[in-house]
Amino acid sequence: MKLFVLRLGHRISRDHRISTHCGLVARALGADGIVYSGDHDQSVLESVSRVSEQWGGKFEAKYEKSWKKAVNAYKKKGYTVVHLTMYGMPVQKTIAKVKRKNKLLVVVGGEKVPWEMYDLADFNVSVTSQPHSEIAALALFLDRVFGGKELDRKFVKAKKVVVPQARGKKIIGK
Amino acid sequence: MKLFVLRLGHRISRDHRISTHCGLVARALGADGIVYSGDHDQSVLESVSRVSEQWGGKFEAKYEKSWKKAVNAYKKKGYTVVHLTMYGMPVQKTIAKVKRKNKLLVVVGGEKVPWEMYDLADFNVSVTSQPHSEIAALALFLDRVFGGKELDRKFVKAKKVVVPQARGKKIIGK
Repeated sequence: MKLFVLRLGHRISRDHRISTHCGLVARALGADGIVYSGDHDQSVLESVSRVSEQWGGKFEAKYEKSWKKAVNAYKKKGYTVVHLTMYGMPVQKTIAKVKRKNKLLVVVGGEKVPWEMYDLADFNVSVTSQPHSEIAALALFLDRVFGGKELDRKFVKAKKVVVPQARGKKIIGK
Repeated sequence: MKLFVLRLGHRISRDHRISTHCGLVARALGADGIVYSGDHDQSVLESVSRVSEQWGGKFEAKYEKSWKKAVNAYKKKGYTVVHLTMYGMPVQKTIAKVKRKNKLLVVVGGEKVPWEMYDLADFNVSVTSQPHSEIAALALFLDRVFGGKELDRKFVKAKKVVVPQARGKKIIGK
């Protein structure tokens, strides 16, 4: 499966950490890349790219000013658009249908999601109907899509690799 | 099961959103409460409490200056301490053991986790060995502990309830 994430409406400085977390979670949990829309923020792109460089894998972080242009471009390439929102249909009820697709664009919102996004999405999907975090919603959604297998994923060409320990820290590489 | 979350080393203003997301995720995904250590930040406690008040459920957000005091207090009450860290043992390999416990304190770090935390924990658990987000790690861990059942959880005495929709937003209440 090909899977990209689109982060809507990034705002410079205010959203730096949340948007960076979205990118790192997308990478760690098996997405192929993330597209940021909203403000152009080189520092977020660099934070995410730096992690990819050190920790391996093929993950793209890119910018597209217009979220709508990004959505339509992916649609044209045959991607199914899943918009994560607390107002959508429960993930546990929609995941079977979504998993059958082989190209997904997963959209995660910022503070204000434009009304049109709900219409452009093929699926509006909720991870609980409670207010919480786009980072957590993205993590649980990816875990459901990949059926937990993303946790065993290897990252090619990693300069740094953690060796899991019951106590303490062990990193191979530099 | 009783389950509390401890957020280490909160820093005022810088961590506001990340720490708030940790609290909201803890609540939405079935924890009984969150304890913040580090800086005392009334606005984070209020953000989380305000959501609980409107959206229901019994969730406590509280503050304890010393993370070590908090950990030891929970230990004394018979809680098993699980520290989420990218350096720990994979969640998919540890979850069976952890699930057998009936009282859990789940510790999520900030920027610098004191070395002692690794020793005080009964389990150091990783959600992938990649750098990503304590919010995502917490979400996936809670989902594994509760076996996905947390997604169907009802929140008692909610003033606001979302009615899931394929398109658009529907909220009952005010």
